[in-house]
Amino acid sequence: MVIKYPNGEPYRLSTDHSQSNIKRPLLAAESDVIFGGRGMTLEQTINDTNTYYRQQQRAVIYKKPTPIQIVKVDYPQRSKAVIREAYFRQASTTDYNGVYQGRYLDFEAKETTNKKSFPLKNFHEHQVKHFQNCLHQQGICFTIMRFASLERYFLTPATLLLKYWQQQTNGRKSIPLTEIIKTGYELQIGYQPLLDYLGAVDQLIQKTQQMD
Amino acid sequence: MVIKYPNGEPYRLSTDHSQSNIKRPLLAAESDVIFGGRGMTLEQTINDTNTYYRQQQRAVIYKKPTPIQIVKVDYPQRSKAVIREAYFRQASTTDYNGVYQGRYLDFEAKETTNKKSFPLKNFHEHQVKHFQNCLHQQGICFTIMRFASLERYFLTPATLLLKYWQQQTNGRKSIPLTEIIKTGYELQIGYQPLLDYLGAVDQLIQKTQQMD
Repeated sequence: MVIKYPNGEPYRLSTDHSQSNIKRPLLAAESDVIFGGRGMTLEQTINDTNTYYRQQQRAVIYKKPTPIQIVKVDYPQRSKAVIREAYFRQASTTDYNGVYQGRYLDFEAKETTNKKSFPLKNFHEHQVKHFQNCLHQQGICFTIMRFASLERYFLTPATLLLKYWQQQTNGRKSIPLTEIIKTGYELQIGYQPLLDYLGAVDQLIQKTQQMD
Repeated sequence: MVIKYPNGEPYRLSTDHSQSNIKRPLLAAESDVIFGGRGMTLEQTINDTNTYYRQQQRAVIYKKPTPIQIVKVDYPQRSKAVIREAYFRQASTTDYNGVYQGRYLDFEAKETTNKKSFPLKNFHEHQVKHFQNCLHQQGICFTIMRFASLERYFLTPATLLLKYWQQQTNGRKSIPLTEIIKTGYELQIGYQPLLDYLGAVDQLIQKTQQMD
């Protein structure tokens, strides 16, 4: 399958750490992932946006490589090392981080087909813990959520996720869309960049400063 | 070989993204790497220090996973996916980043057996470029250099590396130790943490602010 841009240009698979072109079984947290109407995953959309931000010198943000546990490596003569046995590992952190105007940004991007709420099962305990640690160090932490059926995107402060995560014991297993609309910032799909989220980051920073 | 702490306890291989326990051919930039007197590589020493900083809630800094290009994956029934063909890739960034008191930290750790200067061949063009981009976003960028034969460690501002990198055309292929002593901050090997570098980061931040 050739993935194409809206303009008909074939989509150039990002070389910056993305391994999303690799077929592998879906992890539990990814079971809600579907392909968007424009033929790109949320991850591809964000990687493309980050590449644009770097080119324009607006921010330096990368997706972290998938952690792999390597067990066996062959060293054929006169050619490069080949990994012959390895396993996917659970990451300790969120997927994206970087620097923007002196600020440390840290975020996770997830999508759902739900229409009224965002399921907490999209997130892992270690990601929530990582957000807590980064917030303690005054990092700017958020999630980018895509409601695939609605084709709506939100940048939501990590504090909202933490609030609902802690309330899970009460039986509530998702964050209502109404709450995300109230607390988060809606993002629009565009062309360059594909998903401009730094404006929402500016607003989040401003709000964070007001609360200090 | 069991790696041991100075106190005789076996060294617990870090689970946070480090793949340093994997045998693979040395990359060009690693050709100077040797094992320290205490039986730990510089990478293990820094990973251990970062784990300590996280436990103490002093900073959230991780080594990025090694980027891997995956070609073939097997899915045995009733067991997890096995990567059967994959290759090591060149990273686009430096190895370490994270957040400390609201600041974005970004660094690379390297060692040499040289006694009078630090060879520039330990660094790659993409790392230098990444430092430039992060400095432009007001990140705190540095290298941790180990002079293995002297058993001396320095935290050196990335700006010093950039200065010598740009002068390479003049034939100078290394940074003199005298210059590193003058511009950088010497670090001491300790117990908890093994290589306390945040004090030097404080000084670097202070100096950066004075220059603004």
